[in-house]
Amino acid sequence: MKRIADSTVRRLSAYLRFLEDFEARGLLTISSQELAKRGGTTSAQVRKDLSFFGSFGKRGLGYSVPELAGRLRQILGLLREWRVIIVGAGKIGAALARHHGFRQRGFVIIAAYDNDPGIVGTDLEGVVVRDIAHLERDVHRDHPDIAVLAVPEEHAQRVADRVVRTGIKAILNFAPTQIQVPADITVKTVNMAMELEGLSFALTNRD
Amino acid sequence: MKRIADSTVRRLSAYLRFLEDFEARGLLTISSQELAKRGGTTSAQVRKDLSFFGSFGKRGLGYSVPELAGRLRQILGLLREWRVIIVGAGKIGAALARHHGFRQRGFVIIAAYDNDPGIVGTDLEGVVVRDIAHLERDVHRDHPDIAVLAVPEEHAQRVADRVVRTGIKAILNFAPTQIQVPADITVKTVNMAMELEGLSFALTNRD
Repeated sequence: MKRIADSTVRRLSAYLRFLEDFEARGLLTISSQELAKRGGTTSAQVRKDLSFFGSFGKRGLGYSVPELAGRLRQILGLLREWRVIIVGAGKIGAALARHHGFRQRGFVIIAAYDNDPGIVGTDLEGVVVRDIAHLERDVHRDHPDIAVLAVPEEHAQRVADRVVRTGIKAILNFAPTQIQVPADITVKTVNMAMELEGLSFALTNRD
Repeated sequence: MKRIADSTVRRLSAYLRFLEDFEARGLLTISSQELAKRGGTTSAQVRKDLSFFGSFGKRGLGYSVPELAGRLRQILGLLREWRVIIVGAGKIGAALARHHGFRQRGFVIIAAYDNDPGIVGTDLEGVVVRDIAHLERDVHRDHPDIAVLAVPEEHAQRVADRVVRTGIKAILNFAPTQIQVPADITVKTVNMAMELEGLSFALTNRD
């Protein structure tokens, strides 16, 4: 498949949310204009984004809401469960483990890991914190698909290297640093400090 | 000033981190090639990003690390303190309030707010949760610069509207939904579910 830009994938996720909202309200069809308006984009962009994945909608009739929602779930890989581990069960890692919203979308947190003996063994609303010493053994047995890294900055690269060596191909990185991984690993980064700096830049450079 | 793309601002934040790392190691000068290599970009991109803000570096000598770091802090608005409130003190909001890393970069969390009587009054390692009923009165008195929204999806727009009416101009949104705000408000969104979907897309569409 043609390489799809991250920004396109993000818009597909957003379109799916709007479609689910329309589904909940019982709407059966939607125009590219309506989708565009909700997403703060143009109908040409909506049609272009969807055209990567084949032909949708009927001229003048718009898109079928359930059909397009189903197709987007398929495209985004949301018709199956993904097994997720959280590496680092400090404040942020523990909050993520306790968050139940991910499961609704098919992301099941199967375990959390930490190296702190005071945290290992605790139960985060059903997710037990395991000793990180067992990471490799457990991954070999449990086959998680995605690792969420929530470790301090100074450990991030070393822990990422360990995760990569286990064969996990997808990482969501919450450590406030860029991690280096081989080309076949997909990394998404959530960097809250950087987002705050984006805001301070905007506040500082207002006209 | 010319409008600077978000992606440029993110790279400036990244360059500053690398420079701080070089400073800590006692390095005094750095080439655009070295900065580019650390940031996974090109030296032409580094020079272009910095050129928006005037002239830096000497041909053949590279950039002075402390000078460029200082200039980036100035550009990013990091030479002052920013007062931050957290609206929504559930799992994610509480974890953010307890996170001490933001203060180091000048983002001081002055209060958290919630509407749950069971949470109001609790102390999140020095940040007391206040009743959201007092939001408007407190903002008028305390003048926070930035509001972090960590409320459930279904309340996000209504709470964002309240925050905007208080006069706060910058919002970091953790609610898994797009919020609509007037053009003079800057919003950054951290959407963990969407990042996970980006990973499931990548895992599903691997060659």
